[in-house]
Formats: sequence, structure tokens, C-alpha cells
Amino acid sequence: MDASRLSSHLDRLRSIGATADGGVSRLAFSPEDVEGRSYVSGLMTEAGLAVEVDAAGNLLGRRPGRRRGAPALLIGSHIDTVVNGGAYDGAYGVLAGVEVAATLAAQGIELDHPLVVVAFSDEEGAYGTMGMLGSHAFAGVLPEDAAAAFDERGRRVGDLLRAVGGDPAGLAGCAWRPEDVAAYFELHIEQGDVLERLGVPVGVVETITGRVNVAVTVDGVAGHAGTTPMEHRADALVAAGRMVLAARAIAAEERVVLRATTGTCEVSPGMWNVIPGRVRLGVEFRDADAANLDAAVTRLRELARTVGRESGTAIEVRAGARTSPVACDPDLRLLIAESAAEYGLPCHGLPSGAGHDAQVIARIAPIGMIFVPSRGGVSHAPAEYTAPEHLAAGADVLLAAVLRRDAQQEAPNNQEKNPIYLTIGSQS
Amino acid sequence: MDASRLSSHLDRLRSIGATADGGVSRLAFSPEDVEGRSYVSGLMTEAGLAVEVDAAGNLLGRRPGRRRGAPALLIGSHIDTVVNGGAYDGAYGVLAGVEVAATLAAQGIELDHPLVVVAFSDEEGAYGTMGMLGSHAFAGVLPEDAAAAFDERGRRVGDLLRAVGGDPAGLAGCAWRPEDVAAYFELHIEQGDVLERLGVPVGVVETITGRVNVAVTVDGVAGHAGTTPMEHRADALVAAGRMVLAARAIAAEERVVLRATTGTCEVSPGMWNVIPGRVRLGVEFRDADAANLDAAVTRLRELARTVGRESGTAIEVRAGARTSPVACDPDLRLLIAESAAEYGLPCHGLPSGAGHDAQVIARIAPIGMIFVPSRGGVSHAPAEYTAPEHLAAGADVLLAAVLRRDAQQEAPNNQEKNPIYLTIGSQS
Repeated sequence: MDASRLSSHLDRLRSIGATADGGVSRLAFSPEDVEGRSYVSGLMTEAGLAVEVDAAGNLLGRRPGRRRGAPALLIGSHIDTVVNGGAYDGAYGVLAGVEVAATLAAQGIELDHPLVVVAFSDEEGAYGTMGMLGSHAFAGVLPEDAAAAFDERGRRVGDLLRAVGGDPAGLAGCAWRPEDVAAYFELHIEQGDVLERLGVPVGVVETITGRVNVAVTVDGVAGHAGTTPMEHRADALVAAGRMVLAARAIAAEERVVLRATTGTCEVSPGMWNVIPGRVRLGVEFRDADAANLDAAVTRLRELARTVGRESGTAIEVRAGARTSPVACDPDLRLLIAESAAEYGLPCHGLPSGAGHDAQVIARIAPIGMIFVPSRGGVSHAPAEYTAPEHLAAGADVLLAAVLRRDAQQEAPNNQEKNPIYLTIGSQS
Repeated sequence: MDASRLSSHLDRLRSIGATADGGVSRLAFSPEDVEGRSYVSGLMTEAGLAVEVDAAGNLLGRRPGRRRGAPALLIGSHIDTVVNGGAYDGAYGVLAGVEVAATLAAQGIELDHPLVVVAFSDEEGAYGTMGMLGSHAFAGVLPEDAAAAFDERGRRVGDLLRAVGGDPAGLAGCAWRPEDVAAYFELHIEQGDVLERLGVPVGVVETITGRVNVAVTVDGVAGHAGTTPMEHRADALVAAGRMVLAARAIAAEERVVLRATTGTCEVSPGMWNVIPGRVRLGVEFRDADAANLDAAVTRLRELARTVGRESGTAIEVRAGARTSPVACDPDLRLLIAESAAEYGLPCHGLPSGAGHDAQVIARIAPIGMIFVPSRGGVSHAPAEYTAPEHLAAGADVLLAAVLRRDAQQEAPNNQEKNPIYLTIGSQS
């Protein structure tokens, strides 16, 4: 593996959409995304990959395998970013995949299985789109009305897809069958600080945590901040403050769930001299176990009843959009650990708190995810950073894992051992 | 007193700027305000008052006194409203003042002192203007640049004043001298629920509470809601939740201050899946004693240090705009209580949590304020309501208080016993 080439590719790609403070804004379907895709397409061609863009705008680089009819080994991630995001999230996995292909080509190594490097379209959900759009189409689980939806600018998703070479009429044709995929690998920065704190260079993802969004609405009584005695108030923000602490405690103290975050708080009427009458909180729970997500919502409802009763407010706790947890394939996890050991690299099993295209591809294939450390755990921000030696180590492990998997024969019906489901959208 | 006439005047005035849900939007300087002023001006004329508009847009109705050179008895309030406010706040006091004049005229009663009924301009601070503009000019304490300021629509206050017959160049000439005012009375709905809960029809205001706005800024560390372990977070909203509860406790539990309200909460970046990095809270303390306001700010700073230390956040507590408490004149308080007793009406001394023109006029004159009950304590809202019998009783007490004060001679240097100061604007 050519570590300096990988680093220089990352540097070049980060310059496309670079922001003034060192971040990257390369939103899916934007001119920067188009330019970034063109750059990666060129790298794929240089690495001997046959490039195509499918109807969902996924950028694929294919390398044939020796064994006729063998299912493909996939390496995927995405190159789109959030607004003023970092240079590594997604881009690293795609460019490392290209580097794997380039290394195989340079060393004249032929694989039994075809190798396909994929940059999935719109992982981040640009402009309020659904996110992981390309991987959903690839896995054949794209909602039927996806192309007809509008983004927050009022532009139709189908038209956005055309801008990157997609074809909204052909989306169903993007779907891969389980029998066509031997394994899916995704190499990604951790976006948390577990590996950094442990001083371990390689993470083996055990699960991609699921998530449930919970809308909490506190209805109190608005009133004059000067004339309403403290003991006669039903202050929605005071009750909401308790709910923020309650949500945190469900994870941090009661350990019902892995993560609990209140990310939004909207106060009405929102004036200094008016007691808040209504507050809306946006709470999110994440866990590797779907039952824990349910338990957290149940617990939040219990606490809301207590807080509501004690504060004289009415608190509604409504569970909304939900993504179920997804387990990584046990065999691929072992194989990644073996690959790390091959390079003498310590590795550590951990859950992924962030979502990834891998969780969607899990619908049709066993998935294996490799993490490398993120400095300070920072991601989706200009300060996102992974040291070059960690970038190189991750790519080495990816290559080794691909080679190890290539050496294995497919077990009959190997998809059956991984009965994973994924649910998108609103549930009560 | 003609209670039904007073009620019908209130009904007519509330129809000017009436909103669909029963509220009133008669913002200062608006066409509705102009129409309302014209209506009140007509009533003043019918009541035998000589009408004039001063340079600050204050609407004055004058009735001469018998005693040559005697200082005036003032009855004042305002007829402008907040957006979708109520029909009684301000308007009641002005129309009751007109009714007092009409009753005196109808019964052929001459006073020793001149009587002046005033509707002060822009009490509510329409369109982001300073508020209590007319009473500031009347008391000679208007900031020099008041007319040059812009409202939130970008219109110059001086131009707004012209729209209601004012003259920005003549503002200094509006100021009354202390020796020209014997007493100032303001009759107002309570805007709280103390009288209603006590079942007492007449409130004698003891103080108009002072207020300090405190901007609380919590700086934590934004991060990925999925990847950042609970124990490594510095969540600005979790810390802010504790600050909201701390602010409340300073009033409700520690009783350091009369009222504490957090009315605003702005979360940055404010996304469901991002740990809040910064939260700004708008806290307001009110008390009848300026020292308690200072003590509350000091206590909030102490609690901020604790919360900051325990949550890993940096919390800044910055005291901003401040209005000092103002005491009502002890003699006028007694005189109002005697007037209530004259009608067999129970009365109760209480602080005013809301601000009133009276607190500004206190700079030049002894002030007396009479409160009547507000149903449910609701004010600045369509549901603002005071029962007709309470409206009538308040007006009776106002008339009786004016007559009692008229019967008194002025003590020499009577202003000296009320050394009150008022501070507007930002202080650290």
C-alpha cells in the first residue's frame, strides 16, 4: 500500500469544497460533489477499475475476478460531506478502497472474486434529503417515492440524481441481489474517541447502533414574568430542563441505553419577560440493541409523568423516526481482527454510534467495518483529523481483509446467518 | 361614576385593533393607535377636558383647578397594546381617568388642583422601541438620542412620533417640573392573580419591582450524538438545563429574589444528532429591592461555577439591562386604602411585578397605583379580563383618591421624601 499516495489523494479531495476554516462542504449533488466524483472516477480508472454510475448516482469501480460467477467483494463508503464537515468521514473509506485496487493492480494480484469499490450517493442527507440514498437503492430498499420527494430547497430528488449521472426512472434496477455479494467492507474514521483513549489503532465494529428520535413537547402556561408568583407557575422551560437531565440520566446513570442526547430546544413564546408556555425538545437515543431503545422511550415517558405532575405541565413523549441496530458479520469481524494481527496492530471491538452505508448494505450482504482513531473524537467539523499512520494502518487492514475473504469459498446460503432488518421512517 | 359608560368605552376602544381571537393589536404609532387616540381625545372633550398632544405624542386632557398656581393632580396610563394583547392593560386606567373627569363635570364638582388625564405614548415599546417613551419625555428623562433611534422595521422614532402629532425637535419641552405635580395616580389591572386568589377587589401597590436581565452563555463541546460516550461529553444543554433550574430555585426555594424566569433558550448547532456546543439563556430577576437583584445575580454566578465545574462547560453570567425598583408614595398608599374603605371595599398591599408609566413619573412626583383583579392573572393576551364590578370599583376608588388628595394642601418640598432613581439601559 502506498500510504503517501493515499494521503495526497485525501488532500486533493479535501480541497474540493474546502471552507475558510479548514472544513469541507461537499454536499451531495452540489457542484463540489460533481467535481469530487469526477476526481475519484479518475483515480478509479488509474487503479484499473472500470467505472460506472448507476441510476442512484452511486459511483462504482469494478475489477473482474478469476472465478467465474463468483459474488463480488465490495468496498464502500461515500464522498459527500455535511456542511463544513471534515475531510475524512466517508472520503477515507472510498479512497482507501481505490488504493486497495491500485495496489492489487500494481502488484499483479488477481482475486477470485470481482472487487467493486463504491462511492454511495448522498450518505449525509444533503439539503434535508433522506440520506444513505445510494446505499438504499443498491440494497433494493429505497422507498418508492424517494425520487419524487423534494429537498428543503424545493428541488425534486429525481432531478438532483440526474445532476450526478443518475436516472430516477431506473432506480429499481440498481438493486444488487444477495447472491451477487460475498462481503461488504467499510473502512471509516471512528468519529468518537474510544480508540484514541485506548491507544489502539484498529477498531472492529461489532454493531452499528440503532437510533430513535423522540419529540418531547412540554405544555405549561405562558405568563407575565413579573406578575406571576413562583408558586403559581407552570413553566414549560423549567419542566423541559428537568426532561433534558432525565434523558441524559437514562443513559449516563441508569444505563438503560448507550447514548441519550437532547439536541434541540425551542421555547415559545421565547421572550425574556414571558414565562415559557411551550417547549419542544428533540431527544435521540442510540443503542446496539433495539429493546434498549424501546426501554429508554418507556423510561422517558415514566419520567415525563413525574415531571409533568410535579411541575403542573403536560408532557408528551412521542417516538418518531427509528433506525434499528445492525450487527456486523461475526466471521468478517474475526477476519478483520486477524488482518490487524497480521500487521502487529492491536485492535478493539466497539459499537459504531454513527450510522453508515454498511447498515443498509447489511440487508443484502454480510458487513465488516474497520475503524481508525479520530483525534479528540471530532467529526462532522473542520477539526476532524486522523493521523497518517492510522490512515495507512487502516488501509493495510482493509487490503488484508479483502485478501483473506477472497481466499474463502462461499458457504451455501451464507446470507441466512445474518437476519438483519432495518426500518426507516416514522413509528409510534 | 357611570360604570356602564366606562364599560361601553372600554368595549368601543377594544374594537379598535381587535384581533380574530378576541385580543387587541393597537401598537403605538400604528393606524389603530391613531384611531384609538382620536376616540379617546373625543371622550376627553365630552368630559370637559381641554385636549392637547405634547411633543412626545402624549395625549393630555386638562381641567383647570380653583386654586391659582396649584400643582396638578395627574391620572395616567396608556392605550397602546402589545401584539395581540388584552383590552384592559393601560386602556382601563386612561378611560377611568376620563370617567373621573366626566363625573366631576356632571356633578359640577370643582377641584382646587388642576386635573390632567394623560395617555402616555408607546408604553409597550412597539416594534422594538424603548417603551414608556411618553412618560420618559414627560418626566424629562428621555435619552437624548431617543428620537434618532430606529425601530426594528428600520423606521426612525422621530418619524413615528410625528405620525401621532408629536414633534421630535420639541421633546425637551415636554418635561414637567416636580413643583407642577401634586400627585400621580395610575389605575391598572393587576396582571397577576394575587387579588383574585385573595378575593380582594382593590390592590394598593407598594412598589413597582425592579428587573435585571441576565444573559447566561454555556459553552460546552459540540459532538456526534452517536459516537461520543456519555462520560466524555460537555453537553451545553445539559448544563443549561441545570442553570434553568438553578435560576428558578434562587426565587422559588432560596427566596433570594421575588421572581426568576428563564424566558429564552437558544441551542447551537440545534440539531437532533449533535450534542449542543453552546446554549444561550435569557434570565430575568425581579424584586422590589435592588439589593436582592444584585444578590440574585451573585448567587446565579456561584451556581454557574458549580454547574460549569461539574459539567465540563464554561458558563458566563452577564447582567445586562436593569430597571431599579420604585416605591409608591406612602401617603398616597394610605389615601388609596382610605378611599377603598369609604366604599366598603377590602384592599390589599402588594408589589407590581409589571412595569408601568408610574415608575417613570416617580422621578418627578409622588405616585399612587391602584390595582383591580385580573382573571387568572392573564395579561398581554386575548384572555385578559377584569369583571365589570371590579372595573367600577377601581374607578370609584380612583375618584375618591383624587378627591381626598385634592382636599390636602401641598407640603413644602414634598418631592424630597421620595428619593427614587430609575436606571435604564445596560450595566455590567
